[in-house]
Amino acid sequence: MKSDIIIAQEAILKPIKEVAAKLNILEEDLEYYGKYKAKLSDELWDKVKDNPDGKLVLVTAINPTPAGEGKTTTTVGLGQALGLMNIKSVIALREPSLGPCFGIKGGAAGGGYAQVVPMEDLNLHFTGDFHAITSANNLLAAMLDNHIQQGNSLNIDTNQIVWKRCVDMNDRVLRNIVVGLGRKADGVVREDHFIITVASEIMAVLCLADNMKDLKDRLGRMVVAYTYDGEPVTAKQLNAVGSMAALLKDALKPNIIQTVENTPAIVHGGPFANIAHGCNSVRATKTALKLADVVVTEAGFGADLGAEKFLDIKCRMAGLKPDAVVLVATVRALKYNGGVPKTELSNENLLALKKGIVNLEKHIENVQKFGVPVVVTLNRFISDTDAELNFVKEFCENRNCEFALSEVWEKGGEGGIELAKKVLSTIEHKESNYQPLYPVELPIKEKISIIAKEIYGADGVTYEPSAESAIRMIEALGYKDLPICMAKNQYSLSDDPTKLGRPSGFLINIREVYVSAGAGFVVAITGTVMTMPGLPKVPAAEGIDVDDNGKITGLF
Amino acid sequence: MKSDIIIAQEAILKPIKEVAAKLNILEEDLEYYGKYKAKLSDELWDKVKDNPDGKLVLVTAINPTPAGEGKTTTTVGLGQALGLMNIKSVIALREPSLGPCFGIKGGAAGGGYAQVVPMEDLNLHFTGDFHAITSANNLLAAMLDNHIQQGNSLNIDTNQIVWKRCVDMNDRVLRNIVVGLGRKADGVVREDHFIITVASEIMAVLCLADNMKDLKDRLGRMVVAYTYDGEPVTAKQLNAVGSMAALLKDALKPNIIQTVENTPAIVHGGPFANIAHGCNSVRATKTALKLADVVVTEAGFGADLGAEKFLDIKCRMAGLKPDAVVLVATVRALKYNGGVPKTELSNENLLALKKGIVNLEKHIENVQKFGVPVVVTLNRFISDTDAELNFVKEFCENRNCEFALSEVWEKGGEGGIELAKKVLSTIEHKESNYQPLYPVELPIKEKISIIAKEIYGADGVTYEPSAESAIRMIEALGYKDLPICMAKNQYSLSDDPTKLGRPSGFLINIREVYVSAGAGFVVAITGTVMTMPGLPKVPAAEGIDVDDNGKITGLF
Repeated sequence: MKSDIIIAQEAILKPIKEVAAKLNILEEDLEYYGKYKAKLSDELWDKVKDNPDGKLVLVTAINPTPAGEGKTTTTVGLGQALGLMNIKSVIALREPSLGPCFGIKGGAAGGGYAQVVPMEDLNLHFTGDFHAITSANNLLAAMLDNHIQQGNSLNIDTNQIVWKRCVDMNDRVLRNIVVGLGRKADGVVREDHFIITVASEIMAVLCLADNMKDLKDRLGRMVVAYTYDGEPVTAKQLNAVGSMAALLKDALKPNIIQTVENTPAIVHGGPFANIAHGCNSVRATKTALKLADVVVTEAGFGADLGAEKFLDIKCRMAGLKPDAVVLVATVRALKYNGGVPKTELSNENLLALKKGIVNLEKHIENVQKFGVPVVVTLNRFISDTDAELNFVKEFCENRNCEFALSEVWEKGGEGGIELAKKVLSTIEHKESNYQPLYPVELPIKEKISIIAKEIYGADGVTYEPSAESAIRMIEALGYKDLPICMAKNQYSLSDDPTKLGRPSGFLINIREVYVSAGAGFVVAITGTVMTMPGLPKVPAAEGIDVDDNGKITGLF
Repeated sequence: MKSDIIIAQEAILKPIKEVAAKLNILEEDLEYYGKYKAKLSDELWDKVKDNPDGKLVLVTAINPTPAGEGKTTTTVGLGQALGLMNIKSVIALREPSLGPCFGIKGGAAGGGYAQVVPMEDLNLHFTGDFHAITSANNLLAAMLDNHIQQGNSLNIDTNQIVWKRCVDMNDRVLRNIVVGLGRKADGVVREDHFIITVASEIMAVLCLADNMKDLKDRLGRMVVAYTYDGEPVTAKQLNAVGSMAALLKDALKPNIIQTVENTPAIVHGGPFANIAHGCNSVRATKTALKLADVVVTEAGFGADLGAEKFLDIKCRMAGLKPDAVVLVATVRALKYNGGVPKTELSNENLLALKKGIVNLEKHIENVQKFGVPVVVTLNRFISDTDAELNFVKEFCENRNCEFALSEVWEKGGEGGIELAKKVLSTIEHKESNYQPLYPVELPIKEKISIIAKEIYGADGVTYEPSAESAIRMIEALGYKDLPICMAKNQYSLSDDPTKLGRPSGFLINIREVYVSAGAGFVVAITGTVMTMPGLPKVPAAEGIDVDDNGKITGLF
């Protein structure tokens, strides 16, 4: 099998205007970035906003394992399959982060014959959206420190600055720094921290904003620090909103590219899936729904994090009603959940499969709690046996889920036809009665408790004293009626990454709570969350090159 | 008079393909970034590289004063005038830096009716070139610190790391920082510094690179640190070259936009004019020369810094032969040089003019030392009197310079016709015998001495002990035959910014010397050089806004 970048570079791309034409987008509504990328103009939205909405399909997964599940690959492959079936469809994905490409992870544009292209562009600067976010984030930080330097008329407590600088790079030495050293003219000394750009609240804000006005309102509400009296200080009070919005003007517009099979893909935004909500932008999803009959989108991590936030945060805020959820798993990952070590996943093991499938079972139940029909798909591996596949199929059908095998990694859209048919029949025959899990009007602790018990299967929730007091402060400051954005390890339904399968008899411990007032949610953190990755012993960067003709190698 | 941004927004732009067609560029060789910006493809260079070169005109100026000279405005206006005269011409400019737009300075795209547009795009993200440089710079920094974290097999002395992180923002608190605080996994603690992106050596490298191969060679030679044994450690040794080059792949391609009169402008690169050479990219200038009969370009600061480096560094390295130099001055600035305070510059004062014109005289003599004919132009102000203008005219003509008034700020290209005619007649009738000021084979101190005496008019040069030892080290390490990049205050010919006019009887004191091995020059610093600006009491950012339709206001 060829590597992802070879497959991507061998794909025959169509000019983006031809791809866009499949969605009836006129050339005048495209803002080109090279020949194969474009932004969708603001005018396009005005033209299509009264169109009826297409159907919305979310692709999510069981808890990720080292065995790999292939959620993005499935999303792309499903879109390609719908395209082959002449369904007017579009894929709505997140943009990948630049930093991790140089670490372990490599790119994030699907895999095999189910990829979006040009993959080098997508994984590097793309259309500059993340650079715009980095600039806006760091302008706000510079204005904040400058305010303190110039007399601090807002009475900001330098020990209570919550706004962090950011960079789209895996750079561990920037996690904890001291700034402002030197002479008086070099600023006020204080502890500071860099986060990776995708963890900036501005990323979440951009992805949840409906339009420029909403973007500016949200930017203005962002809390950057607290005063010595404990009052929040916002970006608006620093007069930073207009210039941040100017920096984000183009980043707010969705991007359109294509898959290796020329299926249109709207790729826009990429908030962290732990301290933020982990979905592509509202603007992109809404535009996609106006342009296509079926929109296939995905959310970060497993369904306990990604789907929960998609359904409780994004869909609620944006008024979206998903019609079906595709749950991705692999036989290997289910066996891994059943206790099989990574080296032995290629051997048939029905006992382990039976033991591990409880992870899938819990995610099926969880999604059904939101009232949305579920389709389960297994990304097929050559080592999967018929007995194993049949066991999973029967298991799903007994739980009122459609089931389909997927071979999109190897076969592209053709390998996703079975899945596409099941998705279409689900949309047609099963009604979606989407509703969020909890009303936002509940107290913060009750909302956290509902997620922990209903979704994670916990017996209850404990709080660190600092989290307790943060909750009291947030509620006292009037940040009410906001959904909860849970930051939990993605590997387990519990807050202990070693507890695979369907753990029970555990408590969720909340270590830290804070408000992202611009994004419009309260972040509740269990365990430790890494907002600035590091590079490994041998970074992927060492293997990346570009030849004299500009051809890139080593991105994967 | 309307503000710059109003004039820019009122300009009727042509689609960039129509503008490019004036230079016989085909649409297939344009990579669009929106409708009014494009990059020139690598294939274009292959097509035009055997064309004969056009004429190269450098626009430079007297030492800058608070009165303002209008060098970029003159450059743009001259290009517009040539366009009106149906000369196949192109303007080759630097890209402005993002950070300073939010400080005091505002944008940098010319002024009045002599501007390049779209000015908002140019002043904000443009085509992402600077973001690419920021990313490459910070990837190298992250790989450097990661190398130390992972065992430091190259034996890097953390007290001798010379590579700095960068950000395209005026952010004084990042000048002096401590990184790597926290736990063992959070990196090694050390002092670090951020510079503004335009001060990154990668900016200079990109601007001096002939092609991708040369870019990679230069990136590889960049010194990032020294070992405990005093040996240089390069980016190549960190295996960072390929991934940096991948990040810079598109940034290496020149950008084409237009003026408010639809004259083509190639705008590419923007290295600092103090610690770097302060000119647009070699690739852009070379391409421009193949596309047009006359290329008008500019260099940073006054002629003592900008023109000297253009002639001694860029032209020498790139094999360029300038045909004429336009020296920009104003009556007001010359009177300021003659001791008139800023508030009284509107009054006729021939005595002060006579006293201050020695600054212009010295710059004329300097440029003539390089063998290139000089045209002097005065940007006309309403307060200039005929007696004053005539005095300057006569002064120049007595020194074998053409002279022309310029009114491009108010009248656009029409206001530059007189200047354009003088430039064309100079090119036609006066031979350019360009040669650099000094041979690069001389010892570092001799090269510095020649610049100090011949260009600045100093009696000699003194060295701080650390500069002395740095020179010994650089020469011992074999960094030979490199030109000198002087970093001096721009306001005076001397290293004392208060000495206006044509100072004499002074010494130049060299405080610091280091090698930029990738750029290919030795930097000699006099006085203090600011590589990270700060924001003022009321940053320009506070006045910038964007309305619900995406229209930006407050950039100036």
